[in-house]
Amino acid sequence: MLEQIQQKKTKGSETDEELSAMREELITLANAAKEHKLPVIITIDGWSAAGKGSQIAKLIKYMDPRFYNVESIRDANDTERRMPWMHRFWLRLPAKGNFLILDGSWYRDTINGYMKGELDKSEYKQRIEDINTFERQLTDDGYLLIKLFLHIDRDEQERRLKKLMSSEITRWRMNDLDLENNKKYDKYLKCYDKTLTRTNTSFAPWNVIAANDKKGSQYAIMKTVTESIKAACAAIKQGERYVPSPMFPVTEYAPVTFKMHPVKRLCDVDMDKSLTDEEYAAKLEKYQNMLFELQSRCYQRKIPVVIAYEGWDAGGKGGNIKRVASALDPRGYEVKPIAAPEPSELARHYLWRFWKRVEKDGHFTIFDRTWYGRVMVEPIEHITPAERADMAYREINEFEAQLDRWGAVVIKFWINIDKEEQYRRFKERENTPSKQWKITDEDWRNREKWDEYEKAVDRMTALTSTDFAPWTIIEGNDKKYARIKALKTICGRLEERLLSSDD
Amino acid sequence: MLEQIQQKKTKGSETDEELSAMREELITLANAAKEHKLPVIITIDGWSAAGKGSQIAKLIKYMDPRFYNVESIRDANDTERRMPWMHRFWLRLPAKGNFLILDGSWYRDTINGYMKGELDKSEYKQRIEDINTFERQLTDDGYLLIKLFLHIDRDEQERRLKKLMSSEITRWRMNDLDLENNKKYDKYLKCYDKTLTRTNTSFAPWNVIAANDKKGSQYAIMKTVTESIKAACAAIKQGERYVPSPMFPVTEYAPVTFKMHPVKRLCDVDMDKSLTDEEYAAKLEKYQNMLFELQSRCYQRKIPVVIAYEGWDAGGKGGNIKRVASALDPRGYEVKPIAAPEPSELARHYLWRFWKRVEKDGHFTIFDRTWYGRVMVEPIEHITPAERADMAYREINEFEAQLDRWGAVVIKFWINIDKEEQYRRFKERENTPSKQWKITDEDWRNREKWDEYEKAVDRMTALTSTDFAPWTIIEGNDKKYARIKALKTICGRLEERLLSSDD
Repeated sequence: MLEQIQQKKTKGSETDEELSAMREELITLANAAKEHKLPVIITIDGWSAAGKGSQIAKLIKYMDPRFYNVESIRDANDTERRMPWMHRFWLRLPAKGNFLILDGSWYRDTINGYMKGELDKSEYKQRIEDINTFERQLTDDGYLLIKLFLHIDRDEQERRLKKLMSSEITRWRMNDLDLENNKKYDKYLKCYDKTLTRTNTSFAPWNVIAANDKKGSQYAIMKTVTESIKAACAAIKQGERYVPSPMFPVTEYAPVTFKMHPVKRLCDVDMDKSLTDEEYAAKLEKYQNMLFELQSRCYQRKIPVVIAYEGWDAGGKGGNIKRVASALDPRGYEVKPIAAPEPSELARHYLWRFWKRVEKDGHFTIFDRTWYGRVMVEPIEHITPAERADMAYREINEFEAQLDRWGAVVIKFWINIDKEEQYRRFKERENTPSKQWKITDEDWRNREKWDEYEKAVDRMTALTSTDFAPWTIIEGNDKKYARIKALKTICGRLEERLLSSDD
Repeated sequence: MLEQIQQKKTKGSETDEELSAMREELITLANAAKEHKLPVIITIDGWSAAGKGSQIAKLIKYMDPRFYNVESIRDANDTERRMPWMHRFWLRLPAKGNFLILDGSWYRDTINGYMKGELDKSEYKQRIEDINTFERQLTDDGYLLIKLFLHIDRDEQERRLKKLMSSEITRWRMNDLDLENNKKYDKYLKCYDKTLTRTNTSFAPWNVIAANDKKGSQYAIMKTVTESIKAACAAIKQGERYVPSPMFPVTEYAPVTFKMHPVKRLCDVDMDKSLTDEEYAAKLEKYQNMLFELQSRCYQRKIPVVIAYEGWDAGGKGGNIKRVASALDPRGYEVKPIAAPEPSELARHYLWRFWKRVEKDGHFTIFDRTWYGRVMVEPIEHITPAERADMAYREINEFEAQLDRWGAVVIKFWINIDKEEQYRRFKERENTPSKQWKITDEDWRNREKWDEYEKAVDRMTALTSTDFAPWTIIEGNDKKYARIKALKTICGRLEERLLSSDD
């Protein structure tokens, strides 16, 4: 792609007028984005000394600073390195109507990592896949993603770097990587070109800017940004999906497919399983001790563990989680109860609030209700349109795949009870003063939709029981049996991971 | 304090029954805390190998894991070191009704820092003051703070450390600091004693637990925790403030007082100041260039800058901020517009949402509306009772003092316009289609309370214009004049700081 770029000198007088018109227009467009609740992400990558910083400064000069945030992406810090690599980008997602402008992005991370030898070929390829997935998820959710690459040729770069190094005011900003970038220009060129080509998708195509000429590149950036926002707002107005106009032929993209793990339909689950009090007491002690040992080994090897609890109302999630938690060293886990999202969460991609809650490696994150609300309560209660919710099966698999590749053991429970058992427990709650707060009209209303929920659960488990994050259906009519099964499942999965990481 | 502690052996049979009764009670009490929206912080400090971890495990074993969070406080990481030292504790504040249990706390940080020589005597003393302030702010806000110190004698500690070092399962958890703690037992004893004595306040007294005997200490911890929660809930029920019962005579505590900086009353402000277009253009360029240079020097020296904008509706905050922001390297600042708090913010100390938004050192954080809402809109609109809001003057000074000691330049603007000018601008907004979104019925309603607001502003500036964070009243009838004054003030303050840090 990059070799097709012609560097040319702009005549100042021709562009000045247009430039100032576009600047005015950008102010209006930023207001339109706010009005249409359009979230905008502009990433600016490119060669060292290509002028990323000063182009950003010019871009935002006329925008309302309350509506944008500029972030400079450098190497991940210690805390960030303990999370999935995309985590730090997820956390930065702008709210609807706001702008995020990134000086360097997930591309910087990936290309520098590869060039420095910190990522091998297959890790690099995996990153490209992660990037395409991420960008598709964002654009599917209505984010406008404008990717800019500032291209300068070798001589121009050398000239600029020399100038930057010669002045005290700018020298301290330079680092070895900047000089490397020029010394190994050809190698970098190849890597940039390969990376850009592979990520030049129909939903997030590249805009390569010939940046030898500063005014010319400012013009090109302004034009790209204003036209994209205008088109995206126009699409929203007409209720259509915005489709960007690519500068280069796009790369064919197909989402990754996952190997599935068989899972039973709820009607096939044997609901009669139970344990006696003696069996329960013995097994509880056994598996809790085992889990404590396993946690310590996971902690030492910095293996993260993510446990997702879903199940019928009154299914016994709380008590089950308690038996797992009380086996663990309390410094090594956190339970995250998921309630209705807050305004700041509703203003972002729905996976944002879950990414935000994942704990660092070596730790357990236990979710009491999860991202699966997206394909159950949300479509059933018409909070999210069915077509939108349907996209979540894939997004969720992709999310869990990233946790898996990060090194996490991902364990998912559906605690199943039958309709009669639920009735019995509801009634018991109503009749026990200390438990009355646990039962609301909403629970009774949800119960009326039992069949609809059951269908949704079967569909959900069938579509998201992957090889790396399989569902475990827990027979929950007997709480004792359910607790032991959860503990045993967790122990089994951790054993397995520890064994395989011994190799 | 510590030498008064008698280590004694408990007879197991005596306490077992009481212990299990207390455990049952704790479940009920945790529900009561939830119901009364009581936030609880339990800090567990003490000697290495005193059993902090296992005591926490026992404490929470019967609690609902959705309502608590246990965190282990170790040395601050790189990111945390770039913030005020208390920042990481502020971020962890539990929501109302929830528990935060800390294995090690701000005391660990301070005592280890002092013993390792990272803090000198005066820094240590400052920390003690910060701690007392923090604990007073929390308890003033209704947090229940239970501070536990687990005390063991030297021989017992040596015995335990030897045992821990001899087993493979536990050895990896030990570090040099743990061994130091025993080797320099006398020195640590002195430091613990001094620290505990100075922070044994009436609002946050210490509970020292004789921990040689494990069951005895479990009993003592349970008793302290259950009784404190019970008493705190009872106080809430009766609409009274909870007063803890101290174990040792408390240290007299008086909040720090601050040197004030003179500030004009609004009625004394000369509202006729203005600039011609030519003066404005020349000065704008001059001060924006100057600010850009100064920012670069602040960035290099990692000086944080916090700018707070307050002012009348239609006072011109937005445009003013824009002129400041557009002078800055966009990678080095963030503008934080402050709107109504979210549920998670309402559930915590009101300063939490501002602590959360402060950017790391070397960066500018520009607040568009601020923590001063607490003493203006909140009492005037009856969102916060006047007596509660009145406490904020001190709390805010303390907050800003911490920013100042962290190294931040704290700059505060009140943009002042007169009542006629506001009327003119409101009308202009109503008559300009692109500006109509900026004017709401609420603006007109607030305007009716002009006199009340004016009184509140005068009181606010008089009570919070400290030497280190003085208010600057900006004459805002002429927007040009106001923008230049803001820029000039910022430049002046930064110059001053950079000069003084040259010494």
